[in-house]
Amino acid sequence: MGVIGGGQLARMMVPAAVALGCRLKILSGEPDVSASGFAELVTGDWRDPCVTTRFAQGCDVITFEHELVPDDVYPALERSGVPTLPLPTTMRNASNKVTQRELARAAGLQVADHEVVSDAAELANAVDRFGLPLVAKRISGGYDGRGLTWLRSADDIDRMGASLAGDPVLIEPELSIDAELAVTVARRRNGEHLTYPVVRTFQEDGICRSVIAPARIHPHHARSLTAAAVTIADQLDHVGVITVEAFLVDDELYLNELAPRPHNSAHYTIDACTTSQFENHLRAVLDLPLGDASMVVPAAAMANVIAAGEQAVWPSDVELPPRTSIHLYAKRYRPGRKVGHVTVTGHDPTAIERIATAIADKLSSPGERSDDPVGSPKGASA
Amino acid sequence: MGVIGGGQLARMMVPAAVALGCRLKILSGEPDVSASGFAELVTGDWRDPCVTTRFAQGCDVITFEHELVPDDVYPALERSGVPTLPLPTTMRNASNKVTQRELARAAGLQVADHEVVSDAAELANAVDRFGLPLVAKRISGGYDGRGLTWLRSADDIDRMGASLAGDPVLIEPELSIDAELAVTVARRRNGEHLTYPVVRTFQEDGICRSVIAPARIHPHHARSLTAAAVTIADQLDHVGVITVEAFLVDDELYLNELAPRPHNSAHYTIDACTTSQFENHLRAVLDLPLGDASMVVPAAAMANVIAAGEQAVWPSDVELPPRTSIHLYAKRYRPGRKVGHVTVTGHDPTAIERIATAIADKLSSPGERSDDPVGSPKGASA
Repeated sequence: MGVIGGGQLARMMVPAAVALGCRLKILSGEPDVSASGFAELVTGDWRDPCVTTRFAQGCDVITFEHELVPDDVYPALERSGVPTLPLPTTMRNASNKVTQRELARAAGLQVADHEVVSDAAELANAVDRFGLPLVAKRISGGYDGRGLTWLRSADDIDRMGASLAGDPVLIEPELSIDAELAVTVARRRNGEHLTYPVVRTFQEDGICRSVIAPARIHPHHARSLTAAAVTIADQLDHVGVITVEAFLVDDELYLNELAPRPHNSAHYTIDACTTSQFENHLRAVLDLPLGDASMVVPAAAMANVIAAGEQAVWPSDVELPPRTSIHLYAKRYRPGRKVGHVTVTGHDPTAIERIATAIADKLSSPGERSDDPVGSPKGASA
Repeated sequence: MGVIGGGQLARMMVPAAVALGCRLKILSGEPDVSASGFAELVTGDWRDPCVTTRFAQGCDVITFEHELVPDDVYPALERSGVPTLPLPTTMRNASNKVTQRELARAAGLQVADHEVVSDAAELANAVDRFGLPLVAKRISGGYDGRGLTWLRSADDIDRMGASLAGDPVLIEPELSIDAELAVTVARRRNGEHLTYPVVRTFQEDGICRSVIAPARIHPHHARSLTAAAVTIADQLDHVGVITVEAFLVDDELYLNELAPRPHNSAHYTIDACTTSQFENHLRAVLDLPLGDASMVVPAAAMANVIAAGEQAVWPSDVELPPRTSIHLYAKRYRPGRKVGHVTVTGHDPTAIERIATAIADKLSSPGERSDDPVGSPKGASA
């Protein structure tokens, strides 16, 4: 199986490939990426249709760890004759913020008022219509807080207007969010699907900090969001896993965004479910029966390890509390970069979330114990 | 980390390396092995001290997926200056059937009467002393039913006597076994250790067919076997995981054998415990704090997929019952060869063992559905 992208999502597909008896071949822009060492790595620019098509030769099927592939790569992949799953049309529609909103509305989710603006004048009209604060979102290519700009002052508007060189962005009012939720659906080509539980996600500075599974919300919200996600997956004719992120605002579910690939909010499934989101993504792409997506534990909490500085932490000093698993991505530490995650399973969501976050904090910077300076993850060599 | 051996045990170390942020480099006799595609693979004869020493250069630490390394390789590895864990002395002692028995007796396990014989005359004496039936075991290099010969008739004795060209074997009476048990201990260099639950194993033709965890035995047997295993690990100054297999005979625990590496009887830990045996092996070898070895589910059953013929099964037709995980090794099917395993978690050990065995059977041969002939595991290509 060929994978476009070699980051941590590709890395975490590796254990699934190990279990399924298949191998991965990865196309990555640089040789030293999170997945390197665990797959045949091809270095090349996946934005170039020629590179991507050449990579596809010799693969049984192509899938993606991100939705950043430019639109002209998909037709080239289709011409190559190698199956591409999710389908190119699915990838294009699922990663377009305008299409996402049409799909979500058709699936019964609320969608915030929004406008697509391409220049300062259109932006000014949107400000007139909605007032401040606003959020500007890149139409495609944005994910995980990237491609998001908060517009809260006249200065913000001026800066945004000046940067809009005909490149359209989606503008919508900033919602007063009561909770952020996410649900992941795995779907095969024949429509067979399974859903993971709805989870609650917690953000800091636009980056997911932690996740609690299952979310403690009213069951009818969980049912509605799950049903909407299945409808969206069906509308997209999606193959693989897809995550729908939603806001709970005044007791109503609003679309946040879609991700047609394994997603940070479902990393807990590695340790808490019979079949992880990564294995079900591969199962769907390989057209194998999906694996049980239910949790084998009452609750799970996941906390991202977000690098505090440039100094990596080698976990030799990190004692693990019971039911705690760490997952390191072998990525160079840079402030604000996700370099791993921690999962804790148990009964009390609040307690396990606290433990997960504490261990993640220990892994995010060497802290006071700088007597053993570590420049790069020790494990990056064999 | 360097690993000597590229079979399924090395393959299953891969997900652990993915989680721990380290990479594997594997020394294997042939290029097309179970672990290939998931690590840097060096093809070479690991029985050759020069090859092994050259392989060790560039590794932070060397470990083993099997105990078949000849004795003269260990001093060469020690001279190379690259840490070798388990220690060479541990590997030698743990894999010698005579030393195993001394260790086990000192740790409080029963040991069957036995003799080491090197020729037909010594064998005849042992037959006089013990009577039939007997079991002959290779002193070292035997594992998993290999290196075992059952002596039940005069013909068996004659054949064995003729084959004993000065190569000593251990002879012991065949015990009347009530149950076969196993326990796995993970131990760090500093003596810190954790134990997995005692499991019951079921053999057919000398090959492990299935495992139930935890074993339903009297708690005092579980305690005794666990304590003995910890003592053995301490005596060996073992680093990594080690499995002690025992027979329950007339309410007494007898040593069967030791394996100073990840072991088939603990494959269930991948799906049923917070930290798998493979991750704890790597953690111990890397001198990281060990991870929680307790089960997150009430019970687990593991069944090996034992190839019925040469025709591989691609699991596209294999629907997975709830709480069922499959692990395929991407090995060419040959009759009697272990090519994967199935784990089912749940409450009722008998029920989940039945499910695991049924799914393993489906994966062991294409059965009647030969309309889709598959020559080799489809997933062996990318």
